Amino acid sequence: MEKLLKFDNVYIENYASVVGKMEKHGPLGECFDMCEEDEYFGKDTWELAESEMVHRCLNILLGKSKLKESDVDFACGGDLLNQCVGSSFGIKTMGIPFFGLYGACSTFVEAALLASALLSAKFYNNAISYADSHFCSAEKQYRFPLEYGGQRPPTSQYTVTGCGALLLNRQKSKIMIRDGLVGKMVDAGITDVNNMGAAMAKAAISTLENYFTVSNLKPTDFDIIATGDLGREGYELVCEELNVLDGFSDKYTDCGMLIYDYEKQDVHAGGSGCGCSAVVTTGYLLDKFKKSEVKNLLLVGTGALMNPNTVFQGQSICGIAHAIHFTGGEA
Amino acid sequence: MEKLLKFDNVYIENYASVVGKMEKHGPLGECFDMCEEDEYFGKDTWELAESEMVHRCLNILLGKSKLKESDVDFACGGDLLNQCVGSSFGIKTMGIPFFGLYGACSTFVEAALLASALLSAKFYNNAISYADSHFCSAEKQYRFPLEYGGQRPPTSQYTVTGCGALLLNRQKSKIMIRDGLVGKMVDAGITDVNNMGAAMAKAAISTLENYFTVSNLKPTDFDIIATGDLGREGYELVCEELNVLDGFSDKYTDCGMLIYDYEKQDVHAGGSGCGCSAVVTTGYLLDKFKKSEVKNLLLVGTGALMNPNTVFQGQSICGIAHAIHFTGGEA
Repeated sequence: MEKLLKFDNVYIENYASVVGKMEKHGPLGECFDMCEEDEYFGKDTWELAESEMVHRCLNILLGKSKLKESDVDFACGGDLLNQCVGSSFGIKTMGIPFFGLYGACSTFVEAALLASALLSAKFYNNAISYADSHFCSAEKQYRFPLEYGGQRPPTSQYTVTGCGALLLNRQKSKIMIRDGLVGKMVDAGITDVNNMGAAMAKAAISTLENYFTVSNLKPTDFDIIATGDLGREGYELVCEELNVLDGFSDKYTDCGMLIYDYEKQDVHAGGSGCGCSAVVTTGYLLDKFKKSEVKNLLLVGTGALMNPNTVFQGQSICGIAHAIHFTGGEA
Repeated sequence: MEKLLKFDNVYIENYASVVGKMEKHGPLGECFDMCEEDEYFGKDTWELAESEMVHRCLNILLGKSKLKESDVDFACGGDLLNQCVGSSFGIKTMGIPFFGLYGACSTFVEAALLASALLSAKFYNNAISYADSHFCSAEKQYRFPLEYGGQRPPTSQYTVTGCGALLLNRQKSKIMIRDGLVGKMVDAGITDVNNMGAAMAKAAISTLENYFTVSNLKPTDFDIIATGDLGREGYELVCEELNVLDGFSDKYTDCGMLIYDYEKQDVHAGGSGCGCSAVVTTGYLLDKFKKSEVKNLLLVGTGALMNPNTVFQGQSICGIAHAIHFTGGEA
């Protein structure tokens, strides 16, 4: 049976979010620390744009926390680009010990779990965890050149341009990271790269079920239960399976459904990408603790493990989902 | 200043290695658990070959440890393929909670550090850490189609076909993982993708210097100090800088120089890839503890953070290096 990671005195000191213009014009547009209208972020390529977005987000986080780069003990993060160059190039000049992660779109939660575990064990005094994605660099790499204007089916999702970051330490604050669960890979047999939500939903269901079992907590113990980026397709699959749990349907939402306006924005099944759960959490969900609107949040980062080669070669897309439990602190 | 990770009672229960035919015909050929002459490992594509190699290696490790898949609490690993599909597809059917990492060729050490930290903190009772690379899948992805037969300059390195894995727990054995250091990214300004050794050497030097400072240990406290895959070029750069340290030159070697025979095998500057340090450690170095030939080994995993796009766009290749200290246990 999976083991619950119980963290000892790990708190969120600060968080930061930077997004692009699609996200600014969505329903959460007012929530983010910075919105950049220029999708190049002032750089020459989309890859550098993504790194610049990361760099700005980490700088905002340091500024909020009144920390210099050299005050940070450890950083971990990841993204969707080949060899994770978005997240690593974004932090490379900062001189912070760095641990690169790849968990596809589950990376934001994966990074927060890792940082929490290392702080809980007192290996470090503070840590940054983050994740990012950029619509243009992702389209270029995974699908078609943007100029091609390829049509997208209704089940496809729209990669969020955004970076979200946490600054964690062991000083009491309004938000504690209480526990978490590392997920297993679950293969639902999906080979359609335009239906990632379905590919990840089974992993989300498995992790949610396992989490409720090992934690002895119930859906009613949470104010919000959010998956990372299943979009409408994946959301429906989770509901079909888990709405039998008392209270689940009232609490459950998905970050990929919150970030865009389905009526006004052409996003098909919703938002996706490492940046999706990252910015919805750091821009919107965590603020609810500060406003005392929520006491317990269960966030399940969802990732689809594949690359264009494996898809062309007919391999199915494997889902993975990691859970993290934020709870109101005592500051 | 970087913080030393001091581990509490973390031991290597077992280790396993699988390699291809070039590695079999090298000077360490007799050391590995399995050598496969077929570079496809019986599969249809090189990507699937790499995953099959991972799968065999993990199965050998489980067999040696007399464990079922469901007995393993946690696994972490990574590789060089886009979206790390070598390592993840290799473990996907095993149902083990999985944490994906990307540290380029430093991944073997990164994974061992992460598993050690989580065991030391008692989050888990046992864990697998591993890393892999495959010459053919790497050439296809990073350089040219193999059929093209492109010429390689003398500073280029040869990607190791291999997977190495550790099974860690808290039961005393002959090899303890004592401490480690997570490295920072270091940009030496190298833009030549055929000179990775130079791009990584500065990071290795930085991590070695920092390690000796924070650990209060000296080169003479070790029997072997090994970098992961600098090859001859990077090795020379490290020697130039660190041979001033008492005893360093006697202890220092590089896994990329050990695995192939420069005279007989056409490998230019030496071996590289996530699999290089992984199989030299699990096939050769760790056996020296069992034979009581060494008491202390410092392994520095070295990675080059880049992808073909960043290189085409003129970005320099950033190095990163993580250190791990193995010491004779008390079994």
